[in-house]
Amino acid sequence: MKVGIIGASGYAGVELIRWLGKHEVEVPVINSETFAGKKVSELYPDFIGDDTRFTNYYIDEINSMDPDLVFLAVPHTAAMKIVPKLKTKVIDLSADYRFTDFSVYEKVYGVKHTDKRKAVFGLPELFRKEIKEAQLVANPGCFVTAAILAAAPLNQSNGIQQIIFDCKTGVSGAGHRNSDVNNFNNLSENVIPYKLIEHRHSFEIQQFIKHKTSFTPHVVPVVRGILCTAHILFKNYVDPKEIQAVYEKFYKNEPFVQVIESLPELHAVQNTNKCHIGGFEIEGNRLVVLSSIDNLTKGASTQAIQNMNLMLGFEETKGLEG
Amino acid sequence: MKVGIIGASGYAGVELIRWLGKHEVEVPVINSETFAGKKVSELYPDFIGDDTRFTNYYIDEINSMDPDLVFLAVPHTAAMKIVPKLKTKVIDLSADYRFTDFSVYEKVYGVKHTDKRKAVFGLPELFRKEIKEAQLVANPGCFVTAAILAAAPLNQSNGIQQIIFDCKTGVSGAGHRNSDVNNFNNLSENVIPYKLIEHRHSFEIQQFIKHKTSFTPHVVPVVRGILCTAHILFKNYVDPKEIQAVYEKFYKNEPFVQVIESLPELHAVQNTNKCHIGGFEIEGNRLVVLSSIDNLTKGASTQAIQNMNLMLGFEETKGLEG
Amino acid sequence: MKVGIIGASGYAGVELIRWLGKHEVEVPVINSETFAGKKVSELYPDFIGDDTRFTNYYIDEINSMDPDLVFLAVPHTAAMKIVPKLKTKVIDLSADYRFTDFSVYEKVYGVKHTDKRKAVFGLPELFRKEIKEAQLVANPGCFVTAAILAAAPLNQSNGIQQIIFDCKTGVSGAGHRNSDVNNFNNLSENVIPYKLIEHRHSFEIQQFIKHKTSFTPHVVPVVRGILCTAHILFKNYVDPKEIQAVYEKFYKNEPFVQVIESLPELHAVQNTNKCHIGGFEIEGNRLVVLSSIDNLTKGASTQAIQNMNLMLGFEETKGLEG
Amino acid sequence: MKVGIIGASGYAGVELIRWLGKHEVEVPVINSETFAGKKVSELYPDFIGDDTRFTNYYIDEINSMDPDLVFLAVPHTAAMKIVPKLKTKVIDLSADYRFTDFSVYEKVYGVKHTDKRKAVFGLPELFRKEIKEAQLVANPGCFVTAAILAAAPLNQSNGIQQIIFDCKTGVSGAGHRNSDVNNFNNLSENVIPYKLIEHRHSFEIQQFIKHKTSFTPHVVPVVRGILCTAHILFKNYVDPKEIQAVYEKFYKNEPFVQVIESLPELHAVQNTNKCHIGGFEIEGNRLVVLSSIDNLTKGASTQAIQNMNLMLGFEETKGLEG
Repeated sequence: MKVGIIGASGYAGVELIRWLGKHEVEVPVINSETFAGKKVSELYPDFIGDDTRFTNYYIDEINSMDPDLVFLAVPHTAAMKIVPKLKTKVIDLSADYRFTDFSVYEKVYGVKHTDKRKAVFGLPELFRKEIKEAQLVANPGCFVTAAILAAAPLNQSNGIQQIIFDCKTGVSGAGHRNSDVNNFNNLSENVIPYKLIEHRHSFEIQQFIKHKTSFTPHVVPVVRGILCTAHILFKNYVDPKEIQAVYEKFYKNEPFVQVIESLPELHAVQNTNKCHIGGFEIEGNRLVVLSSIDNLTKGASTQAIQNMNLMLGFEETKGLEG
Repeated sequence: MKVGIIGASGYAGVELIRWLGKHEVEVPVINSETFAGKKVSELYPDFIGDDTRFTNYYIDEINSMDPDLVFLAVPHTAAMKIVPKLKTKVIDLSADYRFTDFSVYEKVYGVKHTDKRKAVFGLPELFRKEIKEAQLVANPGCFVTAAILAAAPLNQSNGIQQIIFDCKTGVSGAGHRNSDVNNFNNLSENVIPYKLIEHRHSFEIQQFIKHKTSFTPHVVPVVRGILCTAHILFKNYVDPKEIQAVYEKFYKNEPFVQVIESLPELHAVQNTNKCHIGGFEIEGNRLVVLSSIDNLTKGASTQAIQNMNLMLGFEETKGLEG
Repeated sequence: MKVGIIGASGYAGVELIRWLGKHEVEVPVINSETFAGKKVSELYPDFIGDDTRFTNYYIDEINSMDPDLVFLAVPHTAAMKIVPKLKTKVIDLSADYRFTDFSVYEKVYGVKHTDKRKAVFGLPELFRKEIKEAQLVANPGCFVTAAILAAAPLNQSNGIQQIIFDCKTGVSGAGHRNSDVNNFNNLSENVIPYKLIEHRHSFEIQQFIKHKTSFTPHVVPVVRGILCTAHILFKNYVDPKEIQAVYEKFYKNEPFVQVIESLPELHAVQNTNKCHIGGFEIEGNRLVVLSSIDNLTKGASTQAIQNMNLMLGFEETKGLEG
Repeated sequence: MKVGIIGASGYAGVELIRWLGKHEVEVPVINSETFAGKKVSELYPDFIGDDTRFTNYYIDEINSMDPDLVFLAVPHTAAMKIVPKLKTKVIDLSADYRFTDFSVYEKVYGVKHTDKRKAVFGLPELFRKEIKEAQLVANPGCFVTAAILAAAPLNQSNGIQQIIFDCKTGVSGAGHRNSDVNNFNNLSENVIPYKLIEHRHSFEIQQFIKHKTSFTPHVVPVVRGILCTAHILFKNYVDPKEIQAVYEKFYKNEPFVQVIESLPELHAVQNTNKCHIGGFEIEGNRLVVLSSIDNLTKGASTQAIQNMNLMLGFEETKGLEG
């Protein structure tokens, strides 16, 4: 089978190149408008020795190659212009198709949506069956993946008052372009909170959690990884062992989500498609559940490959182990 | 005037040496049992060129020097054995005298308290008047300082449901002894949550905040500083501008606490006695207020000097600017 | 085939576990005296989800399993006590068998050597043929690997006066035990030189470089990787292009050593068995050549697996790509 | 007395603001073309609470204020356009007046020099007397300060073959503008060599060291500080004790240069005007001497203030202690 990547030069794109290189699919399209013709290794030194170059095919050319699937790793608003032209299955890593209600998208992103087709939300733990049948999958945001996985098993619970997701993220989540936030002088030995309320991802989270949620992110001096501390407030006391059992059952057959005995930390999930979940300690009405993922892999690219595996009939874990 | 330090070789002790060196007080006692006779510079290379040495006087000798005040920077349980013997004013940086109710101390620290004299809690923003008169001041814990300052102005509010303090701390808070948590291999590029509930400091916080509180700390790959994210849940909507005005009024005359326009971060407070407070954004019933301090200075040693200034009749800011 | 690891709980040992897990060999012996019975994941959180446990077989039991090869990742002096008892091929990652002249070993390590059998020095780029036939391979030190690969192609040159290797290393090279040097408080935002002359590795380097060499290491705030700056002093001017051509020819068929166009840095080699070589700029009589490796992989464990592949008849690159 | 700063918004400029704030001089001119009118605290959060704003006076206005001295912290080529217009003493932190031979400047910087007046090189340890009399002082480059101080005491020695300065620098040396090299994603857990030969500073160093020198810099994941490893090659064996005695004598009366017993590291000199010198170990004909400074203070701004103190008749150490 063969697949393409459009927008291959950003962090999400280059992780797709890296991981698809270990998969059996061919990847003839590695489009980057800016870097077409350059070697990937000119941007990412860990590719030195690998002669892969960025391509820049027109959409028509891509269609004529008849790929089995195309990954879009372009910015939001760019995706909605490309999707209608592609004659194949698509996994969009931007936010363009993540909202069921397009008016929410338009409000949150402050732009008009020009292609209101339906997509499946690409979180296999919730929508595996739908992903298998999908033509268009909207790959979830990184914080969204961490937060939903930390709380989804409690969607059926009646006893919850509200949930606060306090997230700590590596700076790669802000993209590879040089900026004040990823300037080493500013970030080393610092912690930088931002967008305390109404972060775009909070609206995406709310779609899939049936309780009142709120979300605040903080950048820590780390490249990769998200630690999500979910403060789950119950109306009454609950037994944390029972809650943990609910999570264990919910994720029992999941290949990439593990309820662990120790507390989640970033080291254990970096450069993997894993999500670790742990904590389950309660104090008064507050239960603490922690989830950890790598924002560039389970939070973006390897989750997209997990979706591709489902959409193209591969083993779900193919190319994603170790 | 002259003061002494007992337990001078840890991080809190050495910060006392450093900052008192810029103050007009003399410091003839710089006790360290382990390092007595050694130069401070043998442990802390930024003291190179300064010939100060650790002393090891008996308590009797210290008393006979008739110091105006003694700082105790020894571990908890050690302090309660020394305080009764000292014939002068004392600022205890350990937890031994921080609890009004000694039975809480005994439960939290799992030891018997052997000297149940009363102390003043050394947070000048709440207890300035009492500190001025005190013989014994219990200097607050680092998280406690950050959390209380983030929430104290709302102590009179009726509309609060509960407060969650989600804290991110530099690893110097764990002391200077080599350990798994401060091992660079473990901490670089990581975030490590710990003691999700019932951290000792949570009991200390609860004494001075009149609402239901809970507290969870996380170690980030940083040496110094605490960022405290207070998620303050109201029963009903409140106007964040009004809340901010309450804080501004509360801290108007405080020399070291500033309500700032930008979001607090660690860089702005490291190596100072400052506490920055900001945020004041509300989403539904959740108000986010952030506070930042340096755990070793406002969270320990310079706050102790601020207390000393009050107790000995100096200008409160003496030796603490710049 | 099956192999064993003795001393599996240190960084070199655990990297062997990790990489051998991707190889076709079985690894029934994963000995750790201290942690026998514990899961690897209790020490190394990235193993969470993998139930591998440390074993603690007696040497007799190991021999009776008839392994094809045993890796020794024990400290120096421990290795020389185990090697004589093992009835199979051995790759020793300690220094015990790295010196042709045992009196140098005894002087440098300050101990008597009790088993003076001959070993092959496990640097495939110099001794591939001998390694294939070897019963006992002494795996090179990490700095040694970086330094020799930076200079070996010039062993035939007559025009060299002397070579200075100025190395910058990640702190994992000091082992996983908590220490002053790997204490985050000491190392973050610092550079720490040590052992300016007569580092043990300098004697190991000198064995294989036919010119006068000297070596000074510095710890930088990094976990993994060594950047070796070789200042190569010629008697007369040389053409750097010609020198570079010598290196390119020397390493032309090497699967893991690459002469690269850009300057070597750590990111490009971390978690790989690669060595990058670059620079080749000359100023007066000084040529600068840089080499970079990961101290725990090409500098220890994956180089050991490369040697195993040669000794057991596998493809040399087996299990070491990607 | 009053002084001005032109180019106050970069790292050198802001350090001047910070340190002059502790000095008795007034600083009515804090010029920044780009940020005029903005508070310093908008760029540098550690200034929060300080209402100092950037100014933007014309040169004529500055002259009419009759300042006692002006600091230029503008880029090279900008300085040579301003100096001729200023009617007062000037300390230029750029490279424009650092070269005695302007043709070297023109070759190294690739531009024509338009104001060939003579300046004194602002390294007090070598040119104290001349600085006191100077109208124009060229403040040395950061690497230059570290390298010269590591080698100058040997200027009278006959036995030296050549000196290699291998430097490790924090990334603030590259300025505060966002760039690939100070992008946290690129620098964290990395070491990046650059400009292996013919770095601009190497020509500046060579002016004041009477032996053959060469210089190679490396960026390490650190904000502030330079560690300079001087590999000093002698023609014959020398006694390191004697060499150390030469250094100790040379720097005996220097207030900011210390020959220390332990090895220099960055922690001990950050945020100070100190230079530490140590090492003095010899192996064959190679003597290792290390120097450490903070690139933004002794390597730039506080060294400039040290020069100002000399030029304006203040105590040399005024405003520079602690």
